[in-house]
Amino acid sequence: MNASDVFVIGGGIVGLSIAWRATTRGLTVTLADPDPGSQATRASAGMLAPVSEVTYTEEPLLRLGLASLERWPAFAGELEAAGGIPVDLRGDGTVEVAYDADDLAQLDELAVFEEKLGLRVERLTGRQCRQAEPMLSPNVRGGLLARDDLWVNPRRVAQALQQAFQNAGGRLVRERVTTLEGLPADHVVVAAGAWSPSLLPGLPIRPVKGQILRLRGPRGLLGTCVRGTVRGSEVYLVPRDDGEIVVGATMEELGFDTRVTAGGVYELLRDAREIVPGITELELAETFAGLRPGTPDNLPYVGRHGDVWVAAGHHRAGVLLAPLTADAVVAGLFGEADLMPECTPARI
Amino acid sequence: MNASDVFVIGGGIVGLSIAWRATTRGLTVTLADPDPGSQATRASAGMLAPVSEVTYTEEPLLRLGLASLERWPAFAGELEAAGGIPVDLRGDGTVEVAYDADDLAQLDELAVFEEKLGLRVERLTGRQCRQAEPMLSPNVRGGLLARDDLWVNPRRVAQALQQAFQNAGGRLVRERVTTLEGLPADHVVVAAGAWSPSLLPGLPIRPVKGQILRLRGPRGLLGTCVRGTVRGSEVYLVPRDDGEIVVGATMEELGFDTRVTAGGVYELLRDAREIVPGITELELAETFAGLRPGTPDNLPYVGRHGDVWVAAGHHRAGVLLAPLTADAVVAGLFGEADLMPECTPARI
Repeated sequence: MNASDVFVIGGGIVGLSIAWRATTRGLTVTLADPDPGSQATRASAGMLAPVSEVTYTEEPLLRLGLASLERWPAFAGELEAAGGIPVDLRGDGTVEVAYDADDLAQLDELAVFEEKLGLRVERLTGRQCRQAEPMLSPNVRGGLLARDDLWVNPRRVAQALQQAFQNAGGRLVRERVTTLEGLPADHVVVAAGAWSPSLLPGLPIRPVKGQILRLRGPRGLLGTCVRGTVRGSEVYLVPRDDGEIVVGATMEELGFDTRVTAGGVYELLRDAREIVPGITELELAETFAGLRPGTPDNLPYVGRHGDVWVAAGHHRAGVLLAPLTADAVVAGLFGEADLMPECTPARI
Repeated sequence: MNASDVFVIGGGIVGLSIAWRATTRGLTVTLADPDPGSQATRASAGMLAPVSEVTYTEEPLLRLGLASLERWPAFAGELEAAGGIPVDLRGDGTVEVAYDADDLAQLDELAVFEEKLGLRVERLTGRQCRQAEPMLSPNVRGGLLARDDLWVNPRRVAQALQQAFQNAGGRLVRERVTTLEGLPADHVVVAAGAWSPSLLPGLPIRPVKGQILRLRGPRGLLGTCVRGTVRGSEVYLVPRDDGEIVVGATMEELGFDTRVTAGGVYELLRDAREIVPGITELELAETFAGLRPGTPDNLPYVGRHGDVWVAAGHHRAGVLLAPLTADAVVAGLFGEADLMPECTPARI
């Protein structure tokens, strides 16, 4: 094996982004993954939504999300040019809808918070929700139109990153790395998601299972990205240009379990059809489960950790935070200022 | 192509059974199917239940079902010996359960009817249902224990039939037959299920779509076969020895459409979990849709039809009626008495 400047372990969206960005800064990079983009990245719907029900009490994560969202359009543009694969970055608007009075009250709090942050968010009545997205159920009580949210196709992003990385001279090794001993590089970056602790024992990352569905129907059935809370339970429907709609996602703490279950699929379909009844006619084209890398404080670990660099633990925000994380790690490799100081592994 | 005594078109359970039985009577038989056992037979759960909510007003079908059920144990025994593949014939009891008062009233009518026929059927309270099958929901109102019902694994049956047929010298041609012209045999049998009218225009058989799920869990989770009506909608859960549970099935009149849909899967999971809540923890291992061959009077066509023989249109009863149908067609080939006179194609 030839020596590289950098050896990246893990070919999810985070590892691939770091590897690509490092090659474009002139470093020689090797990335090892038995099947790049096949785990949490493959399961992700690709919503780039820094503000949502689950994050708005977590200010540091929010700051990082907004900073990375800002980088996404340029990141996607460069990536498409370098990788030759469109990544379907879209921003036609996200409608966040509430199904019952409790859901609506929660959404109102979110709106106040988003306005405070200076984000463009409009409150919608039920009727206005259906004007924005005609496929919404008559039962939708009200909602928000979040104009700044984007979404992207993470599978395409992973393909484009692989291509761009290799086009730039990066070396992809389709193998699983089982030890940090003797890797032929000056710098090692562990970006192995939920599997990172097998290389770095003591790193407090745990797998958080997410089940997801892919429905297939006519193009344009859904014009906007739809997020909803249905009786307190969160669901989203993310449309692709080709007529695919991704419905996600469960949150389950079950260890390294990637079984698609009857209960997981049932709950996703139940909640999705409550807010978009028309999905019942669509083909259920795929069911899949991935493992998000969760951390105790919901922030990823990005930075120096002993002899290596780590970029893992992005939980639900791996796709959103990939551009910022890549820039942060590459800046670190060059000894530049830390772009994600909140995420230092030193806090463990 | 060598000439045969008999040329069977269609390798579902009906065509395979005819082909095997004909070879065992000393005839030379060719069977043509691009992928035997891959359509309605593959979708079937394999319940051998002549009496159920949908059939008890249909006396001729009931008579045929009872006659074929009687043949199943010997048929399965001979088949396992000849094909070398166990077919999982089980008779540990079927519990038919009711979810609400209307469902219970319907089940009571069914019990009266079954008793009149001399079938062994016991009425159960909700508590007795749960004694018979501990996985049943506390919400189950009551039910019946049908001791005479059997069930079988149709995929195994199809494999065993292929093997037994070929072991007996039968010739399997993996091709689609598109015309009845010039087939090299004395007798032609059309057993092509929902596709039969493409060979026999005017045969009033239509596809009736059925979606089905396969769940996977620990062996013995469910000890009995469970059939239920949940708010008027029928669902069944059929356990296999290896821990698989088949959940079925939708009934949809949509032409030659075999898409698995969000709505179909949702309804099956919703109803199944109402009567067996524990299924939510099981892996959703497979979703599938097949096309039952439906007829205007719900009876199959079995008998002479112009220059050919036909054995098609078995709708939901293909697995149940396969042994009787095979015996009837082979008897016809030998000029013996008609075992299924109700099913003559002359009634078209």
